[in-house]
Amino acid sequence: MDECRPILNTGLRGFKVASSRISDVDGDIGKIVYRGFLIQDLAAKASFEEVVYLLLYEKLPNKEELKAFEARLSAERHLPAEFIDALKTRPKYALPMDILQAGVAMLAHHDSDVRELSDEAASRMAIKLIAKFPTIMAAWGRIRNNREPVDPSPDLGHAANFLYMLSGEVPDDEVARFFDVCLVLHAEHTFNASTFAAREVASTRAHMYAAVAAGVGSLSGELHGGANVRVMEMLLKIGSVDKVEDYVTAQLDAGKVIFGLGHAVYKVDDPRAHILAPMSQKMGERTGQPQWFEISQELEKKGKAIFKERKGIDIFTNVDFYSASLYYSMGIPLDFFTPIFAIARIAGWVAHVIEEQFAGAAAKPVLYRPESEYVGDYCGPDTCEFVPLEDR
Amino acid sequence: MDECRPILNTGLRGFKVASSRISDVDGDIGKIVYRGFLIQDLAAKASFEEVVYLLLYEKLPNKEELKAFEARLSAERHLPAEFIDALKTRPKYALPMDILQAGVAMLAHHDSDVRELSDEAASRMAIKLIAKFPTIMAAWGRIRNNREPVDPSPDLGHAANFLYMLSGEVPDDEVARFFDVCLVLHAEHTFNASTFAAREVASTRAHMYAAVAAGVGSLSGELHGGANVRVMEMLLKIGSVDKVEDYVTAQLDAGKVIFGLGHAVYKVDDPRAHILAPMSQKMGERTGQPQWFEISQELEKKGKAIFKERKGIDIFTNVDFYSASLYYSMGIPLDFFTPIFAIARIAGWVAHVIEEQFAGAAAKPVLYRPESEYVGDYCGPDTCEFVPLEDR
Repeated sequence: MDECRPILNTGLRGFKVASSRISDVDGDIGKIVYRGFLIQDLAAKASFEEVVYLLLYEKLPNKEELKAFEARLSAERHLPAEFIDALKTRPKYALPMDILQAGVAMLAHHDSDVRELSDEAASRMAIKLIAKFPTIMAAWGRIRNNREPVDPSPDLGHAANFLYMLSGEVPDDEVARFFDVCLVLHAEHTFNASTFAAREVASTRAHMYAAVAAGVGSLSGELHGGANVRVMEMLLKIGSVDKVEDYVTAQLDAGKVIFGLGHAVYKVDDPRAHILAPMSQKMGERTGQPQWFEISQELEKKGKAIFKERKGIDIFTNVDFYSASLYYSMGIPLDFFTPIFAIARIAGWVAHVIEEQFAGAAAKPVLYRPESEYVGDYCGPDTCEFVPLEDR
Repeated sequence: MDECRPILNTGLRGFKVASSRISDVDGDIGKIVYRGFLIQDLAAKASFEEVVYLLLYEKLPNKEELKAFEARLSAERHLPAEFIDALKTRPKYALPMDILQAGVAMLAHHDSDVRELSDEAASRMAIKLIAKFPTIMAAWGRIRNNREPVDPSPDLGHAANFLYMLSGEVPDDEVARFFDVCLVLHAEHTFNASTFAAREVASTRAHMYAAVAAGVGSLSGELHGGANVRVMEMLLKIGSVDKVEDYVTAQLDAGKVIFGLGHAVYKVDDPRAHILAPMSQKMGERTGQPQWFEISQELEKKGKAIFKERKGIDIFTNVDFYSASLYYSMGIPLDFFTPIFAIARIAGWVAHVIEEQFAGAAAKPVLYRPESEYVGDYCGPDTCEFVPLEDR
């Protein structure tokens, strides 16, 4: 393969592929809006269940609507017995995101709604997926450690249920609320790679599960959902606050990045980082391991200063920067960081799939079918002469 | 939702998203080229194994290379016992494409190559996927009918093995070769929706299985891989040659399409249709059911004429038009038509994933991250005022 050949690889950057009513991100000023509402307001005052309702139904629920919606989610949290049987056949060393992708695809097998192409069926599948994501991951977290899955509790909300099913212990209100805020912050972010993958699959009129499984696959990549794991690995490697400056210098000397600093979209700090940081600090205090937050804070300070000094550029914290230490303090295994991202982002994925397949003038989906530029030149401009096997 | 609002929905039509060395399609003259070779030459003279080798390694194999490659595929056809155990937990009414998507994701659980981001690991995963696709589908075809899966035969090639594992009977040479040609014809087709979905997922540095599972999901949509099923359902509904004209007239009167006629890319007959038609005819003669080919032929003739007469436009047969009756004559269940498409197209998907992640100047993938146009106007140009739950 000719390594020097110029290769067109747009990554679709800056290309407006479709319109959407779901969310807006203005990276210049660090503004994120879900269905008209600022993410700061939602994180401070709304539960994940309220945000899911907002994303699905385009309005915040009143008390009765929320209660009914919470009851629907609660009723859908369980997994079929045959699904648990299948999970138990899976090798224990499987990557958790691969378990989730298989899990999403397997849920389709149990649901007759996959045979109905309608807004109503899509909404039902959306709620089932949102409800079951935490149960799948918590069940796997136990099965891979040779423990029995814990059934969801009808007395707990969405965030608390995940922590409960994973550990077997009911979290206190503060931890549950912190985790709830994390879910709110990660629920939606316009046409990111995983959301676009889900929309792309949905555009062929494939069903909700098929589309969401694509989203899970996309999120599993280290350039996307895998980034918060890299941040925590970095914090663990650094180990203490006094080693931060040397680490930053060594990374930049080697031409490497600092995980959690920098983002394609933002030209200021990601607003989500500012909401996550105080929660990370508080959890560090609670667990008696304040160092992970402190290293992060020092890394932000030194990283920004050294980038400015050496390269003359401002660099900003992204959403992965403080979520890493926060999840770690909650006792969540590193390889569950990306699945937690998925447990939140499923809310956005399903809203986008419904929009792609059923919204307004786009009700007849236009299948995404881009062009490519053929740069094969195996036999010059003409096609190659076929030589039969006998004569090769 | 405002139904009248203009919605941007490009479908990426006409947008050159990346360059590729893998294949070229010129819809104006009906030309398809894989790595420089005309599809007519490959269909007439090469086996699917040769074509897979060509797609993966950019050259046709010589005799020794082909023999070694066939041996590698043969060695990889089996499925892990735990994988079969998992398949046996699946509900019998599951859609076969959903089984395949889950199957791809589950294969990742058994493969340590998913932890290695390298060209070599990707190539190994590619071969495993190509080898195992027929085994997965054949195993499911038997399990759902309460029969034990049939192990792959070391004495049969790729195409013959699928038919053998599905039915338990070794196909004769003609049927095996016809099926082999079908696989060659469906192996690759530039940046179609499923291939683009696989590339999109791969662009995040997700592994081969995660990307291919997205391709399977995309292909499952009725606008993409589901089309040949619709053609066969149409042929069965028409039932006999004398009813064709009434059917075409009724469909056009109702503003409906004729499945298998028309394609986004081609302005002449799809060249693959001309290769499939004589095989369909021959298989119809062999099975004593010539009507499915005859109805197809009449439908092509009448469909084209009536379209021309009524709308003044030329319409052309696509690849799904004659593959439907051909698969049906081979005794393949209707809901396995799309999985067969996948058994062929996996060759293209894996080549594209490798190109996306490792080819030339694109070796550092640019994650596909398009823009969207926010058309939410829930509270006018400003964001909405958040009203707490208590006050809603």
